[in-house]
Amino acid sequence: MISLLEFDKTPSYQSIRDAAAQLRGIAVRTPLLESLALNEKLGARLFLKCETLQHTGSFKFRGAYNTLSRLSSSQKAAGVIAYSSGNHAQGVALSAKLLGIPATILMPEDSPQIKLDNTRGYGATVVTYDRYHQSREEIGEKIAREKNLTLVKPYDNYFVISGQGTVGIEIAEQVKDHGARADICVTPAGGGGLIAGTSLALRELSSRTKIYAAEPEFFDDTSRSLAAGKPVANAEGHHSICDAIVTPTPGKITFAVNKMTLSGGLVVTEEETKSAMRAAFHYFKCVIEPGGAVALAALLSKKVDIQGKTLVAVASGGNVDPALYARILNEGDQ
Amino acid sequence: MISLLEFDKTPSYQSIRDAAAQLRGIAVRTPLLESLALNEKLGARLFLKCETLQHTGSFKFRGAYNTLSRLSSSQKAAGVIAYSSGNHAQGVALSAKLLGIPATILMPEDSPQIKLDNTRGYGATVVTYDRYHQSREEIGEKIAREKNLTLVKPYDNYFVISGQGTVGIEIAEQVKDHGARADICVTPAGGGGLIAGTSLALRELSSRTKIYAAEPEFFDDTSRSLAAGKPVANAEGHHSICDAIVTPTPGKITFAVNKMTLSGGLVVTEEETKSAMRAAFHYFKCVIEPGGAVALAALLSKKVDIQGKTLVAVASGGNVDPALYARILNEGDQ
Repeated sequence: MISLLEFDKTPSYQSIRDAAAQLRGIAVRTPLLESLALNEKLGARLFLKCETLQHTGSFKFRGAYNTLSRLSSSQKAAGVIAYSSGNHAQGVALSAKLLGIPATILMPEDSPQIKLDNTRGYGATVVTYDRYHQSREEIGEKIAREKNLTLVKPYDNYFVISGQGTVGIEIAEQVKDHGARADICVTPAGGGGLIAGTSLALRELSSRTKIYAAEPEFFDDTSRSLAAGKPVANAEGHHSICDAIVTPTPGKITFAVNKMTLSGGLVVTEEETKSAMRAAFHYFKCVIEPGGAVALAALLSKKVDIQGKTLVAVASGGNVDPALYARILNEGDQ
Repeated sequence: MISLLEFDKTPSYQSIRDAAAQLRGIAVRTPLLESLALNEKLGARLFLKCETLQHTGSFKFRGAYNTLSRLSSSQKAAGVIAYSSGNHAQGVALSAKLLGIPATILMPEDSPQIKLDNTRGYGATVVTYDRYHQSREEIGEKIAREKNLTLVKPYDNYFVISGQGTVGIEIAEQVKDHGARADICVTPAGGGGLIAGTSLALRELSSRTKIYAAEPEFFDDTSRSLAAGKPVANAEGHHSICDAIVTPTPGKITFAVNKMTLSGGLVVTEEETKSAMRAAFHYFKCVIEPGGAVALAALLSKKVDIQGKTLVAVASGGNVDPALYARILNEGDQ
């Protein structure tokens, strides 16, 4: 029986190494790509870490599997519950399926159809809610209590963050395999789990790399929190195509890590995000969803000085409805 | 000085190993992906070898670099010429650029814009021709003679086929890394260079794997030639969205290999090809161009019995114009 208190511990480089061992042979060691043509255009060397090619089409599988695989037999038999805009949902659903655990997933009723379908496809029970008027935290905790389910939060969880941190270990190793050293690494940030884990790993393995969180405009809570030195919330009433990362505030555990490890936040517009999705199509033949493209967008639109530098952008997910993707391609002039 | 007679030799497993050594650290060792959801749907284990993620977005870089890197200093200084529907063009153009060789490329005037732009982007001089009324072989040989350029044919060349064969070495190694053994491997076939090289490598490293050429309807020359036991040509007057693989007949060297190594050819319709492109978007987050998707299409539409089997489809290229890709996505109901 894992005490839920364990979920609240602060992750470390060691807990990320433990996660890497747990995920070996299970998670995909996703490729680190570069485009010689894009490098020349940018005057920099840009690597794309393609978590779009992870099982379930996003990095979320790493943290979900790392967490679920550590539950006790009785916890596994009782089942798990998660709330998610869709990528954590799929990560938990597939992990639960692989481990034989019943899963209930709370998802916004306006989640991309592809994410709803896939989550159900992995055998999970999906419960939808209205994300503009209902609290997923309250609903989730209520169902968890009533049915004795283990609640697996999408980012504020020791094992989840540790699992996501394995992306950082791979980046460090793969950049080195290319004979390079990363000056800058940018990952998308919603609740901040991916960047918290990734930055802990890189701080250990590539200490000179500056790490930035990328966020869409109006959902720049991590950027503003880092600047303020304390957690601040996003204003209500905004929508974004970046459904994967529209969290209201940084997580408690994630922000405690990120304020220690990050150099700051980079905020991109919707147009910059769409343009990055088109660049990924053109130069990398990779499908990236809007929320997964903000790190690449931040670098391509030069929110930091990239001249002559070695850059890593994490493409964190690829679960985008084909009609939206087609529309974004058609808007471009790449 | 490499005698052009060397280009006409028959490739072997050893010449493919030599190519692998030549390409080490230069070509991308492209990932072999699988989708657990697709496997479940198919009742088979399907691996996708993503040559879309190779430099220039197709496997053609392998053969081009393997050839150009072996030219003598005087041949390099004089320059090379190639004819190509676009992917060999880009492979030769980038290889020439990396090696400091002037390149002239003959391309059909109706090549996808992305392929024309990219080839010019790598610094090559592009000459266009009308592929329905002019012979690229004649034009290419004439320019080569006049300007003393080395002609690098797209498939009927010992070093080109050997370079493409490194795909087969990687498939054998990567399938084994997944603890599997391939029952069936399918690659797209135009002139047949990719499948000739790949099949030579697999015959050595995975002798129980049956290997099939996939082709679009009306351009099934390799399939019909294999059935007839001798090279036959396609009827004229047909068009195909599979621009990368609409060759008139099998190559001389490639067919000599393929009639020895292949189990047969599989022919797919345009609808099956488009459906495979949508499946690659959905399950693999990979952009595949029409001609690059015919192997996946052959397996998904079950042109051979796949039940319970371990399958490999090579996604040979990803250079598709965004407007066409968007249209194909919008036609789907995935």
